[in-house]
Amino acid sequence: MTKTAAMIGGGVIGGGWAARFLLNGWDVRIFDPDPEAERKIGEVLANARRALPGLGNVALPAEGTMTFHATIEEAVHGAAWVQESVPERLDLKQKVYTELQKHVAAEAVIGSSTSGYKPSQLQEGFENAAQIVVAHPFNPVYLMPLVEVVTTEANTPEVIARAKEIITGIGMYPLHLKKEIDAHVADRFLEAVWREALWLVKDGIATTEEIDNAIRYGFGIRWAQMGLFETYRVAGGEAGMKHFMAQFGPCLSWPWTKLMDVPEFTDELVDLIAGQSDAQSGHHSIRELERIRDTNLVGMMRALGATNWGAGALQNAHDAARMGEAGLARNMGEVADLSQPILTQSRIVPLDWTDYNGHMTESRYLDAFAQSTDRLMEIIGCDAEYIASGGSYFTAETHIRHLDEVHAGHPIQVKTRVIMGAGKKMHLWHEMYEGDRLLATGEHMLLHVDLATRRSAPPAAHIEANLTRIAEAHAALPAPEGLGRAIGAAR
Amino acid sequence: MTKTAAMIGGGVIGGGWAARFLLNGWDVRIFDPDPEAERKIGEVLANARRALPGLGNVALPAEGTMTFHATIEEAVHGAAWVQESVPERLDLKQKVYTELQKHVAAEAVIGSSTSGYKPSQLQEGFENAAQIVVAHPFNPVYLMPLVEVVTTEANTPEVIARAKEIITGIGMYPLHLKKEIDAHVADRFLEAVWREALWLVKDGIATTEEIDNAIRYGFGIRWAQMGLFETYRVAGGEAGMKHFMAQFGPCLSWPWTKLMDVPEFTDELVDLIAGQSDAQSGHHSIRELERIRDTNLVGMMRALGATNWGAGALQNAHDAARMGEAGLARNMGEVADLSQPILTQSRIVPLDWTDYNGHMTESRYLDAFAQSTDRLMEIIGCDAEYIASGGSYFTAETHIRHLDEVHAGHPIQVKTRVIMGAGKKMHLWHEMYEGDRLLATGEHMLLHVDLATRRSAPPAAHIEANLTRIAEAHAALPAPEGLGRAIGAAR
Repeated sequence: MTKTAAMIGGGVIGGGWAARFLLNGWDVRIFDPDPEAERKIGEVLANARRALPGLGNVALPAEGTMTFHATIEEAVHGAAWVQESVPERLDLKQKVYTELQKHVAAEAVIGSSTSGYKPSQLQEGFENAAQIVVAHPFNPVYLMPLVEVVTTEANTPEVIARAKEIITGIGMYPLHLKKEIDAHVADRFLEAVWREALWLVKDGIATTEEIDNAIRYGFGIRWAQMGLFETYRVAGGEAGMKHFMAQFGPCLSWPWTKLMDVPEFTDELVDLIAGQSDAQSGHHSIRELERIRDTNLVGMMRALGATNWGAGALQNAHDAARMGEAGLARNMGEVADLSQPILTQSRIVPLDWTDYNGHMTESRYLDAFAQSTDRLMEIIGCDAEYIASGGSYFTAETHIRHLDEVHAGHPIQVKTRVIMGAGKKMHLWHEMYEGDRLLATGEHMLLHVDLATRRSAPPAAHIEANLTRIAEAHAALPAPEGLGRAIGAAR
Repeated sequence: MTKTAAMIGGGVIGGGWAARFLLNGWDVRIFDPDPEAERKIGEVLANARRALPGLGNVALPAEGTMTFHATIEEAVHGAAWVQESVPERLDLKQKVYTELQKHVAAEAVIGSSTSGYKPSQLQEGFENAAQIVVAHPFNPVYLMPLVEVVTTEANTPEVIARAKEIITGIGMYPLHLKKEIDAHVADRFLEAVWREALWLVKDGIATTEEIDNAIRYGFGIRWAQMGLFETYRVAGGEAGMKHFMAQFGPCLSWPWTKLMDVPEFTDELVDLIAGQSDAQSGHHSIRELERIRDTNLVGMMRALGATNWGAGALQNAHDAARMGEAGLARNMGEVADLSQPILTQSRIVPLDWTDYNGHMTESRYLDAFAQSTDRLMEIIGCDAEYIASGGSYFTAETHIRHLDEVHAGHPIQVKTRVIMGAGKKMHLWHEMYEGDRLLATGEHMLLHVDLATRRSAPPAAHIEANLTRIAEAHAALPAPEGLGRAIGAAR
């Protein structure tokens, strides 16, 4: 399968899709009659390049190539995926599909970003309806993992499997809805909340800022990690979900929401909301808000990654699937050349690793070195299973020298040498590079411990053997400059 | 004002309030006729002790004392705050208030955890209605900052101000709603989403797990940091909020949500949801889910703290207000004794600082030491304002020795010595303790830099003078054990 995607329509959503594919190594071909399309997509892409590559802990593949094309025919040439993100008018979408079906490969998937139409409406009358699915993403598309994939009986299992595989491959989550419904799932919730929020503002109960605070200091943080039902399951306690529903169920017949009524969209209501929104957020430009949002999203998703939960667990799975491609070994057999320092990390500096000085903050150097130590431990056999059986290495001493700066979004690699590995001791030397530029060195003395007694103890024989084998191979290398050094002024 | 709070009712919500007050240094007196109350509150408190103290970067005050009482009269003795969290029956609540008004001090605030009643309903017929407010929290109360404070004309400005001050003082956010409405604000949204979710499950569109994924991989993460309106403001782009509304407004008259209809709560529907929820989450006990939830909430809120945004910004403000109380100086004048190592950190190890070995992970030692360096920099005058003017210190070298382990939830303190401070150089020695137990030492060489050229340059005269003054005072102390040491095996 080629790794070429075509974007039909390149606004905020189409541009977000373009950035997702491009940064995951796909070539992206764009058709958008808007003369401003290239500039607009360029702005989305700049945001995406700032936030996405550092979301995970494994470097993304080299970017693909982005090209702009004057016709749909040209844009879809060689495309395995075509994403339609044109305005929400069914006649316009069907006109696009008529053109697409003339030129798109039969085995390509056509995904629609529509929130307003069901797949059966999009497919109606087309010969190869099987290749048309709803693939509804969420803004910012380059960071949010969710894609609602909505299909009909017309879609073959092969098309559905391919759609899921491609979406998963670019680090997203295909939520497959097998039964179509207006607005799919997530937007129905957004619609319910939006309607209620409009009433609250119109009736003067709360301002836009108060409503946002009610969400982000309360259920918003809960939902970010567990959603609705799991949150309530926990709230129900040991008595369980049935107990919770018995308590909460009756509220449904109370008149808590405005239900059927829809507030009229008068100029006054629009002015009221726009004015309150200016008062709340007007001191930030939209570009600033986009970047604040993205930094927050990256930070929160990475926090969830540390617990391997929710959106963080998705990202971890994506990282794990990409390790081989990024040149990272998981065991002795996968190490390309034992006689050279071992590549133990290849990543992009994430947004949450920088500080008020604008560069990667000092504790994240040790975070990176510690992750490289973990990688080396896994390679020699001290993996999660071994640790669960009761042995591990603890760091006793660390010496870091900072030689040069690095900023968020830049690629870093760590190469690791075993200086000594014998008995309980493991003496490591990490070098962190951006390209050929040496950024920092980390010298670390670790001791193998018995996790039950918390005292040092010899490792399993196969671990010591692997470690010794690497140490002996690395002993032929010249001693690293700076090894065994103490902090300068104290000598 | 005393720091005594009384809890009337101690379930999950009352217990959460009790933990919030207790861990923020208040004495807590509890009345709950449930013979299981002490056990139940103990379980909530165990969760709270695990998660809350490490949420911020400044240690909380010493815990207050919790006592259980047989009567309301005894429980409210000396209370400045009384929180009513009894079951949602108006007759029961009014019976409690009748008893409360006999015994509570006139200047005390009575807050109700009610989600179902408006303050005017609670106040009706009471002589001192002024002291009764709705103070509606969100589960888990010990972590979620939001409290909806709903008042009526009967509440005096003094009572409202005191309520806000007390809620802010225990690290929460009082969202003051000046106009009462059924279910206040947040629960109206929850109700709208819950109703829609029930329909989607009942109609077989999506399972509970699919709905949770639609939320937590999508808008849940967005809302956790910006809420609804600010998210849409960003989505609207430079064209602004009016433009966004012009696009999205018409959807309101589309039949996207189920609106007026309420699904009947049949046994079948309850079984369907409970069964799906078991399939989704049943492999975790409720206690496990509570702890997973809390670890995630702490991690995400701390990620927001790094950007000083949303719930993280609230916590930062709470930390800043508590620095003096925790013995942390912000300038030379606040340092108690210059001749001794300076206390530069007093905190509880947060949940997100531990690793697969179950203890504080190595990079967080450097995170803690770096924060202590920042504190010392602020003390000598190298503060945010100075850094913005173009000067700062960069770390050139670090040597950490790990001497003992520490786990999440334990208190740590860092004491800092200036070994040398002259010209561009600053040589620091940090010692990290849990009580008298030395956990680690950090030796750091920093250079003052010109942030424009990124090269070393002398600091401002007042900074060098302050640094020299501390270095000279600390020179009289004996040299720390381990100073200037290189990593053992390499010597």
